[in-house]
Amino acid sequence: MDTLFVIKIGGNIIDDEAKLSSFLEAFAAVKGKKILVHGGGKLATKLAGQLGVEQQMIDGRRITDAETLKIVTMVYAGYINKNIVAKLQAYQCNAIGLCGADGNVIKAHKRVHPTIDYGFVGDVDAVNVPLLQSLLEQDNTIVLAPITQDGNGQLLNTNADTIAQETAKALGAVYNVQLIYSFEKSGVLMNAEDDASIIPQINSTSYKELKDQQIIFAGMIPKLDNAFAALQSGVAKVIIGKAEELHSLITGSAGTSIVHD
Amino acid sequence: MDTLFVIKIGGNIIDDEAKLSSFLEAFAAVKGKKILVHGGGKLATKLAGQLGVEQQMIDGRRITDAETLKIVTMVYAGYINKNIVAKLQAYQCNAIGLCGADGNVIKAHKRVHPTIDYGFVGDVDAVNVPLLQSLLEQDNTIVLAPITQDGNGQLLNTNADTIAQETAKALGAVYNVQLIYSFEKSGVLMNAEDDASIIPQINSTSYKELKDQQIIFAGMIPKLDNAFAALQSGVAKVIIGKAEELHSLITGSAGTSIVHD
Repeated sequence: MDTLFVIKIGGNIIDDEAKLSSFLEAFAAVKGKKILVHGGGKLATKLAGQLGVEQQMIDGRRITDAETLKIVTMVYAGYINKNIVAKLQAYQCNAIGLCGADGNVIKAHKRVHPTIDYGFVGDVDAVNVPLLQSLLEQDNTIVLAPITQDGNGQLLNTNADTIAQETAKALGAVYNVQLIYSFEKSGVLMNAEDDASIIPQINSTSYKELKDQQIIFAGMIPKLDNAFAALQSGVAKVIIGKAEELHSLITGSAGTSIVHD
Repeated sequence: MDTLFVIKIGGNIIDDEAKLSSFLEAFAAVKGKKILVHGGGKLATKLAGQLGVEQQMIDGRRITDAETLKIVTMVYAGYINKNIVAKLQAYQCNAIGLCGADGNVIKAHKRVHPTIDYGFVGDVDAVNVPLLQSLLEQDNTIVLAPITQDGNGQLLNTNADTIAQETAKALGAVYNVQLIYSFEKSGVLMNAEDDASIIPQINSTSYKELKDQQIIFAGMIPKLDNAFAALQSGVAKVIIGKAEELHSLITGSAGTSIVHD
């Protein structure tokens, strides 16, 4: 099986033009098949402010009313996605930007929640593996914006971490998928205050021990639970670390690798 | 050779939600290979107004400063493109929305003009035929937004009529291309005031006669000159008429067909 990198970058990279350029240069240089999943950063919030569209967040999730959906579609699937694609082209990386609606790449449904109305927020149902595979086999790099659709003409705002994870899981059937989550910290830390105290590798056995010893910072537990869930569902390896260290994350000399036992 | 329809819709359709939906339903029902090219309509101008970005037009062309480029990228490649794609998916048409940057589909250069600085406006250099052909052969319908790139990371705003024409010409080498320009009138008229006086078919011989007799309305001449130039460059047929009559345009029972002698 060929290796496929599914790499998710967050707002801290997208909001910083110099960091984004240097990340994209490094990403373009990664050999082989790859998918970049981007979130939105502060641009959507800024545009909403300029347009007087009030933003409501519940537990870090944006409540997506019709006006907000329009804004995130413009910013994520338009501005950010196409600028990333054009920059990758300049680095000789043949990128194609897609949102979940394109080619029905990611089908979702509007979130149903007993008490909170998230608005036009989508939870993922299915990933179009044949289309992604066909594009990857023709040496295209895919740049995914976190906008999906329900198959009935409705666009939906979807969490970019979820897009990365679902895409990685679905493509795990046909590739050796390495899922990289870039974030602010250098990896999973023994000591949350010490950025040098990285745990280089965790498997489910050591994860249990680290949790029992209360070494893992509580905020990391959902991320790690998700990572292990991805491993259970066909992903070969999950890597967590700084986007600025992409090549070292891939070689294993930086970040934390979450691996099978 | 398979037939390929390259269909350009203008702002009068995009700005009217009911017209757009009924056009997309008709478009989805067109059998065979097809590409939809859309312009921008009034949405970009409206958003620019809301954001206080002044718009300058010279001869109907938008001067594209950096802020305007951001707006048209958001509106054309984001909001309009993805909403069209999602609606086509709902009509069981497997659409993929691309701008010229995606997969290097349309490469352009920043317009050079002796006296007018158009800003970030792109003139087309090349169309990526293999990628479009590969997507079409896999039963994808392509929805093109009029944003291109220069290969050096710069996005550019490009006239949608030009995108349609250049795409049609380039694909004329591999398909029997029928290029359909939808516009407000029912076709090329004998009498500009009488929407029923459509000339059903024009070839270069009859075009010369119609011009000599000053039957052709002056405003139509650039459109027709472009249509004949497309025929010269590999397009099989150009059809001009109302988007609302799409199926009749294709069968030849509405609109004006511009054909080879």
